[in-house]
Amino acid sequence: MAPEESWEVNGTSTTPSTAEKLLVHHKENHFTAGEVVRDVILGVSDGLTVPFALAAGLSGANAPSSLILTAGLAEVAAGAISMGLGGYLAAKSEADHYMRELKREQDEILTVPDIEAAEIGEILAQYGLEPHEYSPVVNALRNNPQAWLDFMMKFELGLEKPDPKRALQSALTIALSYVVGGLVPLLPYVFIPIAQKAMLTSIGVTLAALLFFGYVKGQFTGNYPLSSAVQTAFIGALASAAAYAMAKVVQST
Amino acid sequence: MAPEESWEVNGTSTTPSTAEKLLVHHKENHFTAGEVVRDVILGVSDGLTVPFALAAGLSGANAPSSLILTAGLAEVAAGAISMGLGGYLAAKSEADHYMRELKREQDEILTVPDIEAAEIGEILAQYGLEPHEYSPVVNALRNNPQAWLDFMMKFELGLEKPDPKRALQSALTIALSYVVGGLVPLLPYVFIPIAQKAMLTSIGVTLAALLFFGYVKGQFTGNYPLSSAVQTAFIGALASAAAYAMAKVVQST
Repeated sequence: MAPEESWEVNGTSTTPSTAEKLLVHHKENHFTAGEVVRDVILGVSDGLTVPFALAAGLSGANAPSSLILTAGLAEVAAGAISMGLGGYLAAKSEADHYMRELKREQDEILTVPDIEAAEIGEILAQYGLEPHEYSPVVNALRNNPQAWLDFMMKFELGLEKPDPKRALQSALTIALSYVVGGLVPLLPYVFIPIAQKAMLTSIGVTLAALLFFGYVKGQFTGNYPLSSAVQTAFIGALASAAAYAMAKVVQST
Repeated sequence: MAPEESWEVNGTSTTPSTAEKLLVHHKENHFTAGEVVRDVILGVSDGLTVPFALAAGLSGANAPSSLILTAGLAEVAAGAISMGLGGYLAAKSEADHYMRELKREQDEILTVPDIEAAEIGEILAQYGLEPHEYSPVVNALRNNPQAWLDFMMKFELGLEKPDPKRALQSALTIALSYVVGGLVPLLPYVFIPIAQKAMLTSIGVTLAALLFFGYVKGQFTGNYPLSSAVQTAFIGALASAAAYAMAKVVQST
């Protein structure tokens, strides 16, 4: 997730008189609607790929539609839980890690302030700053422990305070999206009992969905949408080819 | 370093020498043994979970070992490609994104330096710093374009320069680890033709593996290893219970 730019350069130059006039926007750290959409895209993209490949592989092994559905939906259930619960627990762990690091920095600020103050200097010196240039910053931070703590968390440890509600939201969104994505390639097998025919339909709708979601994903990540669409579809195609080949191999032994 | 001519506000265009001097020379993210181990743990943990759950689910649906192997190995092949290739392409996209943001910051530094300088102030002001305290820093950075660029990339955008070789290495490591992880719950079905019996062995070895890898994962992420072990095993158990239930439901319709 990229932090926001507070300024867009549109090729025009400006001549502001004071620094304040240049600061147009307050930087936001979070844009929740965008994060939800991102999670949907992630979940659906994943859900489209492996269930599709598994179903295609089993079709190649001449399994009946009913069995393909059994395997496919079981995989979707397992995958959604693995992604959803796994993601949630990972986010909680990160939050715990953040709180432990926060406490440690707090302790260091209180017990060994001179060492911590020297660390501020070290950080700023990496940018070619001389002691006489950064010492006002060090002194100001020493007199403002909360700001000092925030500064160390961000600039020494590179940690952002996680939002626990986001963790749950994100996990649920990804898991549900995975289910929705997985249903796309599997639904043809519900309606078309002959697996080989269902597979053709499945390939058609899934390919279309992969291209569409790849395109949308590209727009959201700021990458070339067409390229993203092709890559997403290609991964699906390659994964299903591998599953198909593997199924054939196992069946022949 | 004396200020360059092109740093004046009135919109003079960059001189080629200044542009060339903005060497893109950033800290490389070093490849460490720790990162490889982390990728192995990630891949194996994932590989242990869904293939296990799928196999358990199909056993519950009374599928023979041969079919469970077909489905399981097909899923492992598809999953490894999805994770491996998907991860690699995502990392490449991030690298492209980084280069585009880098170029944009470079352009902003050259064309609207006053705005960029004000942004430094904005960043530091978040830590309670007054203009008279941070202006030496701003001036020092203005005289050191490379450091200024590094500072903006890190503190404004929060971006680290990605290492393209790491992307490939990481993807391959995760994909291979996924395969190894997936084989653990599936091997019993190779040697034990009666699926229900194979499932018991599969549950046993997979549970042990989940606990072990969860423990190791906990040590690497700095979380309580026992807690991590239990969580990892729990996800596996829940995912397989869901797969089992789903398979039963689908078989009964």
